[in-house]
This record gives sequence, structure tokens and C-alpha cells, in this order.
Amino acid sequence: MNFCSDNTTGAAPEILAALAAANDGAAMPYGNDDFTRRVEARIAEVFETEADVFLVATGTAANALSLSVMTPPFGAVYCHARSHIQCNECGAPEFYSGGAKLVPLPGDDGRIAAGDLLAALAAHDPGVHHVQPAAVSLSQSTEAGTVYAVDAVRAIADVAHDHGLKVHMDGARFANALVALGCSPADATWRAGVDALCLGATKNGAFAAEAVVLFDRALAETFAYRRKRGGHLLSKGRFLAVQFEAYFAGGLWLKNAAHANAMAARLADGLDGVPGAALYHPVEANEVFVSLPEPVIAGLLDDGFQFYRWQREGATLVRLVAAFNTRAEDVDAFAAAARRHAEAAARQGT
Amino acid sequence: MNFCSDNTTGAAPEILAALAAANDGAAMPYGNDDFTRRVEARIAEVFETEADVFLVATGTAANALSLSVMTPPFGAVYCHARSHIQCNECGAPEFYSGGAKLVPLPGDDGRIAAGDLLAALAAHDPGVHHVQPAAVSLSQSTEAGTVYAVDAVRAIADVAHDHGLKVHMDGARFANALVALGCSPADATWRAGVDALCLGATKNGAFAAEAVVLFDRALAETFAYRRKRGGHLLSKGRFLAVQFEAYFAGGLWLKNAAHANAMAARLADGLDGVPGAALYHPVEANEVFVSLPEPVIAGLLDDGFQFYRWQREGATLVRLVAAFNTRAEDVDAFAAAARRHAEAAARQGT
Amino acid sequence: MNFCSDNTTGAAPEILAALAAANDGAAMPYGNDDFTRRVEARIAEVFETEADVFLVATGTAANALSLSVMTPPFGAVYCHARSHIQCNECGAPEFYSGGAKLVPLPGDDGRIAAGDLLAALAAHDPGVHHVQPAAVSLSQSTEAGTVYAVDAVRAIADVAHDHGLKVHMDGARFANALVALGCSPADATWRAGVDALCLGATKNGAFAAEAVVLFDRALAETFAYRRKRGGHLLSKGRFLAVQFEAYFAGGLWLKNAAHANAMAARLADGLDGVPGAALYHPVEANEVFVSLPEPVIAGLLDDGFQFYRWQREGATLVRLVAAFNTRAEDVDAFAAAARRHAEAAARQGT
Amino acid sequence: MNFCSDNTTGAAPEILAALAAANDGAAMPYGNDDFTRRVEARIAEVFETEADVFLVATGTAANALSLSVMTPPFGAVYCHARSHIQCNECGAPEFYSGGAKLVPLPGDDGRIAAGDLLAALAAHDPGVHHVQPAAVSLSQSTEAGTVYAVDAVRAIADVAHDHGLKVHMDGARFANALVALGCSPADATWRAGVDALCLGATKNGAFAAEAVVLFDRALAETFAYRRKRGGHLLSKGRFLAVQFEAYFAGGLWLKNAAHANAMAARLADGLDGVPGAALYHPVEANEVFVSLPEPVIAGLLDDGFQFYRWQREGATLVRLVAAFNTRAEDVDAFAAAARRHAEAAARQGT
Repeated sequence: MNFCSDNTTGAAPEILAALAAANDGAAMPYGNDDFTRRVEARIAEVFETEADVFLVATGTAANALSLSVMTPPFGAVYCHARSHIQCNECGAPEFYSGGAKLVPLPGDDGRIAAGDLLAALAAHDPGVHHVQPAAVSLSQSTEAGTVYAVDAVRAIADVAHDHGLKVHMDGARFANALVALGCSPADATWRAGVDALCLGATKNGAFAAEAVVLFDRALAETFAYRRKRGGHLLSKGRFLAVQFEAYFAGGLWLKNAAHANAMAARLADGLDGVPGAALYHPVEANEVFVSLPEPVIAGLLDDGFQFYRWQREGATLVRLVAAFNTRAEDVDAFAAAARRHAEAAARQGT
Repeated sequence: MNFCSDNTTGAAPEILAALAAANDGAAMPYGNDDFTRRVEARIAEVFETEADVFLVATGTAANALSLSVMTPPFGAVYCHARSHIQCNECGAPEFYSGGAKLVPLPGDDGRIAAGDLLAALAAHDPGVHHVQPAAVSLSQSTEAGTVYAVDAVRAIADVAHDHGLKVHMDGARFANALVALGCSPADATWRAGVDALCLGATKNGAFAAEAVVLFDRALAETFAYRRKRGGHLLSKGRFLAVQFEAYFAGGLWLKNAAHANAMAARLADGLDGVPGAALYHPVEANEVFVSLPEPVIAGLLDDGFQFYRWQREGATLVRLVAAFNTRAEDVDAFAAAARRHAEAAARQGT
Repeated sequence: MNFCSDNTTGAAPEILAALAAANDGAAMPYGNDDFTRRVEARIAEVFETEADVFLVATGTAANALSLSVMTPPFGAVYCHARSHIQCNECGAPEFYSGGAKLVPLPGDDGRIAAGDLLAALAAHDPGVHHVQPAAVSLSQSTEAGTVYAVDAVRAIADVAHDHGLKVHMDGARFANALVALGCSPADATWRAGVDALCLGATKNGAFAAEAVVLFDRALAETFAYRRKRGGHLLSKGRFLAVQFEAYFAGGLWLKNAAHANAMAARLADGLDGVPGAALYHPVEANEVFVSLPEPVIAGLLDDGFQFYRWQREGATLVRLVAAFNTRAEDVDAFAAAARRHAEAAARQGT
Repeated sequence: MNFCSDNTTGAAPEILAALAAANDGAAMPYGNDDFTRRVEARIAEVFETEADVFLVATGTAANALSLSVMTPPFGAVYCHARSHIQCNECGAPEFYSGGAKLVPLPGDDGRIAAGDLLAALAAHDPGVHHVQPAAVSLSQSTEAGTVYAVDAVRAIADVAHDHGLKVHMDGARFANALVALGCSPADATWRAGVDALCLGATKNGAFAAEAVVLFDRALAETFAYRRKRGGHLLSKGRFLAVQFEAYFAGGLWLKNAAHANAMAARLADGLDGVPGAALYHPVEANEVFVSLPEPVIAGLLDDGFQFYRWQREGATLVRLVAAFNTRAEDVDAFAAAARRHAEAAARQGT
């Protein structure tokens, strides 16, 4: 039973079926096909607005490309100190932007605060000696498995726009956040001030499909060239499009995300009261961050459970990610095993 | 009937089946899975040598990343004046290399000649004012649908190595060339001096799968970081791997390529003697370049045939590409239609 | 006697004196000083227009920085095949632009023709697969020591502007061209359609001083940041400014250039009729390109004359550059020596 | 009286004289001259070792170029959070390195601690998702006007080398640090583990002259190409060389730095006991950081004194920089004025 990440899964059956269904016949390459036109229209419809849509195969590409149209090479991109773009993309934003600087901001539970952004911008010196504020990036849901309230997004976006910055949202797990918020896609994004959304599908049931949705359409001017130049324009583009088509069909994206979120909540519940277990962040989407005693971790690994862990502030922090296809019995088995190992450890002293 | 390109096709049924078969269960992400390990070993076996293998989703990524480990930012990459990297990748090699310069060389039928490379290198000045020769890139098969003889590859590689350059092979249609050559993959590549091969599968039956095969393993040192940083490390990496597994299984790649080549040859035969038709390049792989009179082109388009065309030296040059699933009856229909339109045009004078 | 280049000279006495005169007292750094403000105004006055002026220490910096504000990273910059930016700057334009592509154009005597630019642009495909035309660069005077007529500049600029390109002029030897043209600086530049001029002073009597003059002021938006980021914002900026102040004072720049041009003309005259000597390009500014028989070259080197030479089309091409301080007696000595060696060679047969 | 920076000065008379003395006659360009060869040898002699030396005109160029040969584009460069490369070079290190990431470390008084570097490296994950540790950069003297003890440099260098990092020293004010340490240049640098020193002369009496001294000569392999490509190879290179020649002649560099340091110490002494004045950092080189009450600052500005100031933690922080030509009477006048304004403010209450 693998709780490492939602990207250890295969694709949802509906998405596999869509791929198979689109396989016959010829289609013009490089996104010049009807499938792509259709899904662009569909995404605009889902978000209740005009937008420019660009499909790519990875979240890193989506993030780095969208940031590259928001910042000059001498720009500063504000982001959370533990954000994916800052910590986990091997410098992709720097590469695609031609060397812009990511400026890490602090923030509890993976969220940056509008006030901290404001303070950073107020302290900024516009002189030529310094990189110039260009964008702020939010992850929704965050790397800590939490979700920004819509008002929190708007507060950050307001500060950003007041200072001439663009607002980027890393939505690798956007559907999980959306389900948690219970609002419309439009309310969660452009109506709250988001200029560009990287809408992930891969972690929530696709093979490999991410959509860059540019609500600020001026950002689209050079995007297509940058995507091609980055090697991210797939020749058989229809197969990106049909993944998204199936993703939206019948609300699959919301259904998948709701299930994953429910499984994470169930896991948090199951771990509640396990001796030595303590949630590290609130569980608001599909990830559980919990510190566990070493003997418990050892026991779980012995049982064959898989998950990532880190040393953080003297304790061992475990991350457990639920996905669209996580089974309730596996969640319950994990919680029961954790409880069993914790109680055994308690009996043996320590 | 679409003769625009071999990338207007879907995937071969075997490759779709492999994708479906690998969809169940969890696999560690980012290529840390058994599927990927297995296909790396399989590729080494196919090429009868140790090599480092990196899978990506596009040919542009494969080319640009492999060139980026062959040249410093101030390097020169010699290539054919009409090569894909020079003309059709929107500057991806320049982007990934940090600004290296592609130096176009002339050459009939899409092939550069060892002598022209030697002359360029002999004229080179090593001073700091000039970009420094770093690599030579060959396309096999070429953008003109021709194939380098193994001896021609070796002659170029010898000149390159004598001058300290690395040898890159753009093999977006490598299987088509291999079938035409009738030699082993090893003879066609590293035994002839190729240091890195971009082995395409997409055009020959995959959804989106290209393998960078580094025979010169020193080139692999930084590759994995560059791939990640470029956004080309797919999270659900197993799905790249299984495409290649199916590609090699039972010689599918050779079977597909042989069929495509045969269809191109059949098309060339069918056009032989069509009034006003003249082959522009020898037909050696799966592409036919033929100049056709305007009324013939107009007639074919009217009939619903699809193909690319360019004005070149006062004539209209048509490119017809055959793929793994091109049907003989479509080929014959095209040739018959061309003949019909040509004869009609002849009758009407002009 | 050194005819290698006009950059083997020291500075003109007037410029050394200006440096010394400005040495006392404090001045705010990084160009925030009165000297810099004054010279910016002076340059605007010299060119009879508003313009943004940025001072740097090298011609390569001036060229690469000004091109970097004219082209996106996926842009194409058209230039002569033997231009300095293409052949002699080790890829600086590619570096500063983030990987744009220089597209070499042919052209006799170092000049590109409007028709060739037009043909290149007419053949261009705007699709995402190709770098996009962004700028054209002219060298005035050219690398061949020739000068574009004002009408030729205007014809090229008209083609460029009609296609949305910016016009860059590499004026490392602009004063030499200006003197040859006999027109005003304004007529030679912005009135003929030049958007940005790199105005060199170094080769014509300064220590190290080049001015980027942006007639198209929209190009200035990011220039200051790019200059700083490139390391080209000198802290003691007043010393760049005073070089230019002295350069213009009393028409020093024109006087120096006129002298250099006159010395080149005198040299060409002196070589006229020397057996075996043949001018390779017209002598229009301060450079003489002449092919000379090997025994003559050997004799001149023996005599201690210094100059660069290249093998070009089977002959030895010698470049002789006159500078602001080239002495007539040295010119005459060179010509006399060449004649003597040529006649000796003729007497000895061969 | 200008205390803004040591770069508000002109050049030392000895350096102006050297420039004038070198002005006559021809010298080969681009550093291919005897002056440059001589000063390279001189620097090796001063540092008692073999080293590769590259001259440039700005400190930003020296820093960015030397870092660019220490890190791959996906590398991490550890530095103090307030270092010049992190805060004041508009992203030049990112530009020259192709997008490497600067990782800020904390540290009192502008100094990073070996333990903090060790902790950062211990926490590093070598996987492809993360930029890879490549170098550590120290400023000597620091941006806080303090000086690393030789043992502190060695401790940091040991940690760095143990983890495969290179050690960069930003020595824009190296002479000031050296005089403060009272050790040999060799002891202060390569014997303590420094791989590359950016040796500044501009702030200490030159016009514009910085030397990159590569003790780790493997770093020199590509440096010359990178310098040219960055536009930092001056054509009349002799004028960089002679500034350094004069800088070392008769110990001018040490004499100038000792004077500046003494003036800073005198200033700190003079401010000692001024009501409301508090040193913000120890005064160890030629800079005084002192917080002063607002009325005192207002009074000093009224008197015509010039200096930079920042709001920092609720107080106003003033930076006062002494240079090679700062006069004792000006220092005393400043201190006396500060005392006068402080006492007046005290009398008026508040």
C-alpha cells in the first residue's frame, strides 16, 4: 500500500478509455486538432471566462513556463519558502525565466500571508542594483496539504496587483483545493485575482496532463513560442487534450478529488489518538503530515506501507498522500497498524 | 487521407495495449520504477553496449537536452542548414545550451559531408573572440527523407572526434533509417562514432516517447538534473517506459518502420511517370519529396488528400510521409489521383 | 609600426586630459553624477533628438545589451555573415538575449542588401516551430571597411520596420563612417530609420567608452537593469562620461576619424600599382583590405610592420587599419616597403 | 564631504600617473600585451603561488564570472543573506551561471558561520528535484564592514571542500580586510582554502580595475571565453593592467587601505559617546555602521554631509565609508557635528 504520493497511481479508467477512444484516425499535430480546440473551449466554460489555455505534460513545465511570461530575467518571484517551485523543481523557474530570483517568504502551514508580501514589497528598493518584483506564486492546495481561503488569495492578489506584480497559482492539486473550498473554479481563481493557473490533472487521475490557464490574456503573447522552445509542444497533441476532456466529463475531476480528500480525512481520523502521533499541519486536502515515533515508522515499513519521511525539528515527519483510487480499507489498515505499533511501543516502555 | 506527417497518427495497437496493461497498481514516480529500469536494460541490449538512457516525451526535448551536455554556452554545433534543430525547434538548442550557436553546413539531400565539416573546422580560430566547436549533429533519416550510409556517419564522426567534437544523432526517424540500412543498431550508431542518439518512437507508433541514449557515458553526468530542470521528468514515468518496451517487443519498431518505408517506396513508384512530377530527393526512408504541377496539387487537395507543400526554387514541393499504419490502398489512390489530375491538365493544354 | 587595429592605440591627449581633470573630488557612483547627466544631454544635442543614452566600456557589451532589448529569446537577428556580432563576440548576443539566433545574410563588401533581407523575411514562417524575426543589425562602417550610403540604411530600415523588426547599428567605427558620408549624425541614424546606435569611442581615441543611443525610447525600459545585471554599470561612472565629453568637444571625434580615414586613403594610394597588390574591398573609411604576395608580406613583417592577415579564397588578405594618431610617414614607409619588396620579388622571378 | 561610499572617489594620483605613462605607443589589444603579462606575474608573486588572473572593469563582472565557473546552471551558491551578490547585483550571478540559485545563510555582522553552512549541506537532498550545492561565497571585508578571521575562512572552506563545493571570495574591499588581518595575501586566501578571489582595486584607488585570481586553476578552463562573451574583455587591456601595476607598486594598495581603515576607526572613536549613537556592527575595516537619532541625521544632512541610510529594526542605520583619500579633518568635522546635533537634540528634550 503506497501512500508516497498521488503520482504513484496509474490513470483513472475514464481517462484511459478516452485515450483509447481517440487513438484511431489522423489528427493534425502540435495542437492543431479538434480535440485541443474543444478542450480549450471546455476549460473556458469551466472557468466561466475567456482565457488562453496551453497544455503540457508536466507540472514543472507548466509552472516554469507560466512564470517565464510573468517576470523579466531580472525579476523577483515571491513564493513560500517550502513551495514546489522553490524547493523541488531543480531551478526550472530560473531556467525558463533566464535567471529570475525566487524570493522565499515564511508562512505557517505552507501558506504565505498578504502582510508578509506587503512588508517585502514595502522594503524593496527599485534601483538597478536589485532584482525587481514581478510575480507572486501561491500553491493551491499547498505543499503542506492546506488550502488558501478565497479571501486569503484575494488579499495576496490585491497586494500583488497594487505593486504591479502578477499572481501565479501552482494548482498541481487544484481540484483537491477546489473541493475543499466548495466554491466555483472562477471564484477560486480569476475572481480572486489569479492571473495564471497551472491546473494539474496528472496527480488526480491523468497520465500526464497539465493546463496553463492564462486569465490575464496579455501573458499569452509569447507563451506558444516559449512552450515550443522548451520542448513542451507534444506532436500528438490530441492525447493531452482528451485526458482533460475526460477529466472534466461528468465532473470526474471533482469526484476524484473529493474521494482523495475524504480518504485523507479518514486517515487523519484514524490516526487521532494514536499514542505519539501528532498532526503537523491541518488536513484540508488530500495530504496528511503527521509526526510518528520511530518504532511506529519502523513497524509500518515492515508491514509494507510506503511513504516519504523527513527529519524536521527533531521529530520524524511522515507524509501520507491519498489519491483518486485510494481504498478505504487500505487507509483503515494503515491507521490500525499505526495504532498497533504505537501501543506495542508504549507497552515496551520508552 | 493524411500524408502530412507520421505524427498525425495515433499509437500502434501494441503500444496502446501496453499502456493499458501497466495502468494498474502503484509505481514510484519520476522514473524510479521497475518499468524504467527494465527498458533501460532493454535499450542497452538492443544496442549491444552499456549506455545511459533518459526518456522524455518530445523529440525537441531529446535533441536540446542531449546537445546541452555536449557544448558549453560558448560552443558551436555544426548541423545541416535544413536540419530540424536549426529550422524547426524555435531555438530550443540555444535555450538549453545557454546560448550556443548552431553553425549551418550545406549538403545535398539533407546530408552534410565530412569534407565540409573538416573545412569548417580547419578555418576555425580558437581565440576567445569566437564560439568554439563542440559538436556535430546528424539527422538519421534526414529532413530530406534520405539516409546516411554507415561509412558516411563514420567519416563525419572521425573528423569530429579528431577535432574534439561530440557526435549527436537526431533519430526522430531512426528506425526508418535502420531498416533502410539493414545493419544492426550498434553498427548504425556507436560503432560508427555516434556519442548520443535521440531515438524517436513517437513518429513510428508511440504516443509520445523519445529516448536519449548516451553511448559516451561521460555525457550523462549532469543529464538528469538538466532533464528535471527543463520540466521533462514525467512523474508517472512508467508510461514512457512501457511505450518503449512495446516498441521493441517482437521487433515492432522495425516492423512499423519497414512498413512505412515500403509505403513511401510504393508511393514513389506510383508517381513515377506522372506528367510533371519529379522527385526532389531520393526516397530512402518513409518520406517522398516530389514537385508537382499546381493543377495536380489543386486536384489532390480537392480530393481530400492532406500534405504539406512549400515553394522552393520556383516549383511547388510536396512532402508525403508514410507511417506505420499507412494503407496501400490510400497510397495507390493518391498516385492514381495524381496521375489523373496530371493527365487532365495535360489534355487541357497549359 | 602597428597597423593591426585602431585599438592598439592609447587614448587621444584630449581624452587623457579630461580624465585627469575629472579626477578630483567626489561624485556619486553608478552614473548618478553630473558628468553623466551632461554627456547624455550632449549626445542628444549631437543627434538633434531625444534619446536614451547608456554608457559602457566595451563594444561587445554595447552590441549585446542593445540587441537584448530588441529581441525575445526566441527571436532572430539578421546580420551580415561576417559581422562582428556574428563572428567576433563569442556568442555575446546569444548570451544577453537568452539564446536568440543570429541569421547571417550575404552581401558584397560587408554590406547587406535590403532585397536580401526582404527575401529572408518573405520566406519566414510565423509558426511556433521557428525563431521569429526581431531585429536587423548593420555595421557602420562595416567589417570590410566600407560605408553604407544613407539611402541603403533607409532601404533596409524600411524593410525591417514594415515587418516589425528593430534596426540596430553597430557603430564601433561610426565616426569614420560619418566623416565618409559627410552628413549629420541624425541623418546617418534615426532619420534613416536606426532605432539603436552603438556609438564607439574606444577605437577613435578613448580609453574604453561606448554609448548605446536608443532613439526608439521604448527600448530603454529594461536597459538599465540589464546593464547592471551584465556587470556593465561602472561604479566610477564619471570616467566614462568625461571620455565622451572630450570626444565631442571641439569636434574631436570627427577630427580623429577624418585623420584616420585620410591615412587609410593615403595607404591605398601608396599601394596602388604595387605589383601583385589588389584591393579586396573599396577603401571608404579607415581600413584597407589588400591581398599581397607572400614575399611582400614576409618582407613587411621582417621590417617590423604589424598587421593581421587571413587566407581567403587562395590569396593572403592583409588588413591595415589607420587610427586617429597614425602618422603619414609610417603610412608612406609601409607603402614604400611594400613596393620595394614587390619589385624585388618581381626581379627574382617566381 | 561625501561618506556614501569608497567609490565616490576619483583615482589615486599614482594610478592616474600610471595610466598617463602607459598611453604612448601601440600595444596589442585584448590583453595580448606586455603590461598584462607583467601584472599577471606580479599578482602571482604577491600571492606567492601560481594562479590564473583575469582583469575586468567591475566587481559585479568579477563576481558573476568567477561564480559561473564554479557552478552548473542547476547549482546552489551559499552566501550571506545580505551579501552583495545576493542583494546588490541585480541577479548577475544568476545571469552568468545560467540560472543557478543563491541560497542565503544567516550570520551576525555580515559573516556566515561554518556551522550554518554545514547544517545547510547536511540537510541537502542530492536528488534531481533540487539544485545541487556548488559553491560558497564569502565577502572579505563583509557588507557589514567586518572581517573574517583567517581561521573562520578556513573552517568554512573545510566544510565546503568536504562537500565538493568551491570557495569564492568577494574581495571588493580585500585590501581593507588584509590590512586588518595583518597577514600575508596568501594566508588570507588560498592557504585558508579560497579557490577564487575577486580582488578589487576600484574602491581603493583605481579608476575601474578588478582582478579575478583563480587559485584553483582548473576553474580557468573556460573563463576567457566567458569573459569575452560577457563583453568584459577590454580592447585596450593595457589600461586595466597598469592600474594594478601601480596598485601594488610600493605597497600602494596596503597604504591606501590602511589609511581608509584608520579613518573609519577615527570616525568610530569620534562618535563614541555621542548621545543616541550606537554602533551597529564592529568597525573592523573602512566602514562604520551606526544608528543615529533622526534629528542628528537631519542636522548632518543640513551641514552638507552625504551618506546612505536605511530603516532597520525601527532605527535609522547610517553607513559611513572611509576611502584612501578621506581626510582626518573631515572625519573630525563629522564627529563633532554629530555630537553637536545630538547634544542640541538632548537639550530640546525628545
